[in-house]
Amino acid sequence: MIAELISVGTELLLGEILDTNAQYLSRQLADLGINLHWRVTVGDNLERCREAFRQAMARSEVVIACGGLGPTPDDLTRQALAAALARPLEHSAAAWAEIQSYFAARGSTPGLHDRAQALVVPGGRTLPNRLGTAPGLYLTAGPTHVFLLPGPPSELTSMFEHQVAPVLSLLPGRAVLRSRRLRLAGMGESRVSQLLEPLLASANPTLAPYAGQGEVQLRITARGQTEQEAGRLVEEMEAQVRAALPGLIYGADGEDLETVTGRLLGAYGLKLAVAESCTGGLLSHRLTNVPGSSAYFLLSVVAYSDQLKTSLLGVPARVLAEHGAVSAEVATCMAEGVRDLARSHLGIGVTGIAGPGGGSTQKPVGLVYLALAGATTRAHRLLLSGGREDVKYRATQRALVELWRLLQAEAVALR
Amino acid sequence: MIAELISVGTELLLGEILDTNAQYLSRQLADLGINLHWRVTVGDNLERCREAFRQAMARSEVVIACGGLGPTPDDLTRQALAAALARPLEHSAAAWAEIQSYFAARGSTPGLHDRAQALVVPGGRTLPNRLGTAPGLYLTAGPTHVFLLPGPPSELTSMFEHQVAPVLSLLPGRAVLRSRRLRLAGMGESRVSQLLEPLLASANPTLAPYAGQGEVQLRITARGQTEQEAGRLVEEMEAQVRAALPGLIYGADGEDLETVTGRLLGAYGLKLAVAESCTGGLLSHRLTNVPGSSAYFLLSVVAYSDQLKTSLLGVPARVLAEHGAVSAEVATCMAEGVRDLARSHLGIGVTGIAGPGGGSTQKPVGLVYLALAGATTRAHRLLLSGGREDVKYRATQRALVELWRLLQAEAVALR
Repeated sequence: MIAELISVGTELLLGEILDTNAQYLSRQLADLGINLHWRVTVGDNLERCREAFRQAMARSEVVIACGGLGPTPDDLTRQALAAALARPLEHSAAAWAEIQSYFAARGSTPGLHDRAQALVVPGGRTLPNRLGTAPGLYLTAGPTHVFLLPGPPSELTSMFEHQVAPVLSLLPGRAVLRSRRLRLAGMGESRVSQLLEPLLASANPTLAPYAGQGEVQLRITARGQTEQEAGRLVEEMEAQVRAALPGLIYGADGEDLETVTGRLLGAYGLKLAVAESCTGGLLSHRLTNVPGSSAYFLLSVVAYSDQLKTSLLGVPARVLAEHGAVSAEVATCMAEGVRDLARSHLGIGVTGIAGPGGGSTQKPVGLVYLALAGATTRAHRLLLSGGREDVKYRATQRALVELWRLLQAEAVALR
Repeated sequence: MIAELISVGTELLLGEILDTNAQYLSRQLADLGINLHWRVTVGDNLERCREAFRQAMARSEVVIACGGLGPTPDDLTRQALAAALARPLEHSAAAWAEIQSYFAARGSTPGLHDRAQALVVPGGRTLPNRLGTAPGLYLTAGPTHVFLLPGPPSELTSMFEHQVAPVLSLLPGRAVLRSRRLRLAGMGESRVSQLLEPLLASANPTLAPYAGQGEVQLRITARGQTEQEAGRLVEEMEAQVRAALPGLIYGADGEDLETVTGRLLGAYGLKLAVAESCTGGLLSHRLTNVPGSSAYFLLSVVAYSDQLKTSLLGVPARVLAEHGAVSAEVATCMAEGVRDLARSHLGIGVTGIAGPGGGSTQKPVGLVYLALAGATTRAHRLLLSGGREDVKYRATQRALVELWRLLQAEAVALR
């Protein structure tokens, strides 16, 4: 079962946006055991888009195109597929009714252009769009299954998950492929590779390290005759990896640090509050991305000024004057202050210099102090690289790593 | 002058990494006035990689491939190009000497595998790699210019900048291309397209709307004989667009709402504080992504519990009991409370239901109240679609739009 992706959009060819949809779909196909052989990107150009469809349908059994389904005249994907199949587009009353009800639910009515989104390729079935107006499309052309998906990532992922994956998982001829992504905290890719040296040479299952955002991930992929066999190969490799990296693997696949720490906080009935300076709210944002986080997350105070660090968080003016706002002492007072303010079990304080300005020889850009207040308070000094947003992200990543470690070691004692 | 990119790597097709090289090269080609018509991605497979080269050389005048130049057996890009051209690879003594000196400079010697990196396609010229071992390659085949570049982004960008761009900039037949992206707040893509109907038909410059994250963007692209001519065409179209959409365009190109509102706050000497509930710190995170934001941003309080909304932000318990935490009244009290707490000129309050849980018929997921407190306080009721992170993002986007409007209308009065 060979698949091909077609990404449509001049903004991609101009480099204005990154093609995250292609990565998402690639990963999903791999998980389904479907071999992706080609990805092709074309602009909003009828002729080249048609040619991409023609070629893809000739060499691949699953063709997924994304983008170009919107209401404006440069949205040409439907027309291009219709031209490649030599089937003229038809107006679909059902698709139009769905678009109208999408607008009605928002107290609005569709405009003139929105009618174009109700055009379908004959023989195709529209895929309802729960999060936007443009419906998708599914049709078969000879042995080939063709899907058209909308470009906005949230619409694309929702439509893939609910309407495309169920169809693909029923297709015959998929290899039995199982994979698992282990997620590591607190060690770099080069050192991890050294520790795993003998395992990296394995042919089945394969083991590949790669750099995630602020962390290392390890992908295990196994092929087998049956699901059981492939699953067993993955499990055996995972056991060997865990033995080689004790205490470093915090989660697998979609589990990120905020989800894993949130689960631990919830399980132990612990409440958390954070005081942020240089991370500017990002730590709080990440923690609250987890559904249900209101059960354990109480408060974040982002205090950019010294005055508010004192009046709100109770950081003594003397400590600020003596050590400066970027210091282990101030991070400690912030962590303890916000914990006391929120009456939570745990408090985290982060203060540092995110840059690009504000650095000095003594306190360079990237210097961050992080403190966790529980039964006792521990402070960490970090020297982070990258631009302003990198420093912010890496500081929150380290805060979550230290929170995870603390919860593993002390959660029971904190209750 | 038509260009094509070929990205080589199984890790791309498995979705393990994002193809940031393709975005970088796309942007560089656009800046050089070279039309990129196709991007193709293939895995580490000799046959498909050869086919990609064969097709690209038949339809494009500039072909740039990246990845697959390393020392391991799955690095096949050189072989694939040699096969497509039917020119067998040769060992290059010069390339080998360079690789040896790269290792020597690091107190090391090349391994057995590294010899593969000294193979070149006859007729080609190696491109030295300042940041790694794998040299690049440049050759012409008939009318087509072919470049092979290494996959690691730092090596690729350095080699492109120093060795590829200078060659490309001398090629004849480049159009002089200028483009500009206008950014709009507060109107959907479909309505914008209706208002711009006659302009969207223009052939040069072209005008294309597309959906950014929580906003609409309009790309103007003009071709001319000279830079002056192309620049003038862009300016004329921009003036027409601005006339058709009065008061909606907040910025251009890389200027986002947080940068634009930050600049206005700074210029008028106004200070801002925010109180967040459902956005969980994201509003504060976005505002503090702007370098220098500490000059006008004072405080964010992310109060997830009713109790902290009362004790910290002064939202009366009576108002919470009467109207519920998700209400215009509570948003108003939060905005005014955080403004008073921080002694700022402006306060923003956001409260809502980000989901997936917590919704009801009366107050569904996506219902958000937003209030801005300045000289007076105004509250807005929003009904946002999407998953938890979409609702969070869209609520912050709307908050920044309303802040931008308020600053344009009232900034002088607020000082």
